[in-house]
Amino acid sequence: MNDHAYMARALQLAAQGLYSTHPNPRVGCVIVKDGTIVGEGWHQLAGTAHAEVHALRAAGTQAQGATAYVSLEPCSHQGRTPPCAEALIQAGIARVVVAMQDPNPQVAGQGLQRLTQAGTGVQVLTGALSQQAEQLNRGFVKRMRSGLPWVQVKLAMSLDGRTAMASGESQWITGAQARADVQRLRAQASAIISGANTVLTDNARLTVRANELDLPELEKHWALQRPPMRVLVDSRLRVPQEHVFFQAPQAWLASYQAPQQLATDAQWLHVPEQNGHIDLTQMLKILAQKHRINEVLVEAGPQLAGAFLQAGLVDELIVYIAAKLLGSQANPLFTLPLNKMAEAVELEIQDIRAIGADWRITCGIKST
Amino acid sequence: MNDHAYMARALQLAAQGLYSTHPNPRVGCVIVKDGTIVGEGWHQLAGTAHAEVHALRAAGTQAQGATAYVSLEPCSHQGRTPPCAEALIQAGIARVVVAMQDPNPQVAGQGLQRLTQAGTGVQVLTGALSQQAEQLNRGFVKRMRSGLPWVQVKLAMSLDGRTAMASGESQWITGAQARADVQRLRAQASAIISGANTVLTDNARLTVRANELDLPELEKHWALQRPPMRVLVDSRLRVPQEHVFFQAPQAWLASYQAPQQLATDAQWLHVPEQNGHIDLTQMLKILAQKHRINEVLVEAGPQLAGAFLQAGLVDELIVYIAAKLLGSQANPLFTLPLNKMAEAVELEIQDIRAIGADWRITCGIKST
Repeated sequence: MNDHAYMARALQLAAQGLYSTHPNPRVGCVIVKDGTIVGEGWHQLAGTAHAEVHALRAAGTQAQGATAYVSLEPCSHQGRTPPCAEALIQAGIARVVVAMQDPNPQVAGQGLQRLTQAGTGVQVLTGALSQQAEQLNRGFVKRMRSGLPWVQVKLAMSLDGRTAMASGESQWITGAQARADVQRLRAQASAIISGANTVLTDNARLTVRANELDLPELEKHWALQRPPMRVLVDSRLRVPQEHVFFQAPQAWLASYQAPQQLATDAQWLHVPEQNGHIDLTQMLKILAQKHRINEVLVEAGPQLAGAFLQAGLVDELIVYIAAKLLGSQANPLFTLPLNKMAEAVELEIQDIRAIGADWRITCGIKST
Repeated sequence: MNDHAYMARALQLAAQGLYSTHPNPRVGCVIVKDGTIVGEGWHQLAGTAHAEVHALRAAGTQAQGATAYVSLEPCSHQGRTPPCAEALIQAGIARVVVAMQDPNPQVAGQGLQRLTQAGTGVQVLTGALSQQAEQLNRGFVKRMRSGLPWVQVKLAMSLDGRTAMASGESQWITGAQARADVQRLRAQASAIISGANTVLTDNARLTVRANELDLPELEKHWALQRPPMRVLVDSRLRVPQEHVFFQAPQAWLASYQAPQQLATDAQWLHVPEQNGHIDLTQMLKILAQKHRINEVLVEAGPQLAGAFLQAGLVDELIVYIAAKLLGSQANPLFTLPLNKMAEAVELEIQDIRAIGADWRITCGIKST
């Protein structure tokens, strides 16, 4: 096996933390001695051991003279756990292969520097499967580099691009399997954002529900470790605090005016005002910088989803298409006032697949 | 090889007539003697030899005691060519395997009967790959059974289900490869139907254009043999006879009022009136029963396409999806006034595939 194959295994391990490492990145580590894997590990939960520590523990004395494959540059700082670069040196690791540098510009390269300058002659190689490593932590990487979370907008529509009847009736456009797929997206997200219309019309809680989460038992265990922040954008304070949305953990009300009262479990997210609405860019900055939110899932109606899109804040669209037509009086996918073909939002379709009787299209945004 | 494998070859041969056999069905024939194919043929153009005749000619004396595989029941009537059932008997064919009976209820089974009652002991087997055979001639089959053509509606839309800007601007939503794919659909159709809005806004001719038809040389040859009828639905006679639409072969004006004048090459399709529009069901009946149109391609705007859909006349939707958003002020896919989820038109997605940078979704209609 070569470096890329071992790194692929490290990334596979890292991906086991898909649902649980927030606000930390997902990291995997493989230790190889004389062509044999002698230790493996992945970071599970913030505040617990890093991937390198798990792998070194498994390798024991065999770490001496071995190669460590780590999907992200080992840390060099004392956090809630000791620096991993130091642990690798102490264990006698001879060579470290890293997929990508730490995306935080203030510490990038420091872990690698500590390794190379250890005086024990540790060899360091960076960049193996770096694209895959960035993709796995796209939220963490974006937050570190730009101070904004990675934003995914989920929509469910008919083939003619409609999300609900004019009456608001929308349950259910898509089938049970598409809805289970959305549960998976929610479990991955660090925060879920919705609007007052959606929450009121659908009587929505936007929680991760164990019984609807179609995952293998172990993945499900990790997916339920950490309920995501549920953020309700409600500038006019239209959703009463008695609403089911506020009767579950991690309910946040985002508004520029302070609410008169808050439900027992609810918290207020104070966001500045902009033209009579909350400033969405500021809200995302607060989520990223104050609450360390890496990945945001927006599940909203045409207006709020359209506002995110128009503000250029969206990284990815996940569109579930139901094989039906709702007609021209039904609600649009986005409230998005464009006049000329030249103003069209250019997308890049990355994936199309069947989800039960529905189809899911994943798109990147090329221009808004 | 077994019966199904030889029939698959007969169907493959039949499919070579995809663009040219109209108003006849596409038929292929394989003659097998002692495990070897000794003759093959397919029907090319109406008025020329049937598939069986080509295959028997190729087989010569080897047809004696052989098995004939034919994708459609051999004819028993004297048309522009002599009856094929007779020709098979004369050639000494011992066994005939047929994919499906003639779909015309008035003659179904007569060819087979003639074979079995020939007194020469011809063995007959029916039903091998019958579904595939029906699919290949879905237009001919529908016309024979119901007196209506098979109707395909082609649409090009953005991911948010919009076909044009409110200004009418629509060129081009999709890319060159999707447009070349539409040329192929036009070449397959027996008739293309459009409306006054589309023809005026896009300055459309809706012809098959040799230089845009992306097919292998031989297929292209057959695809250009027979220009389809181009039918303009224009009840209010808004498109002037000087329009480019009328300056090409097979231009038909469908209206309930007689036009004052007609361009040199144009013809009038007189269709009864219904609520101030032409009666679309009657138009299709006239096309099927008077003009022997098997397959119709509708390339129209939201109103005419929506009217076909609401009248329950559509068999298949071909939707090209461009990876862009045109926004909520742009034109809808169909003008289709529905109020409740329960009224939604149920579709069945049969195929999704990439066509250049765009995607093509093929849907059947489950209910309107």
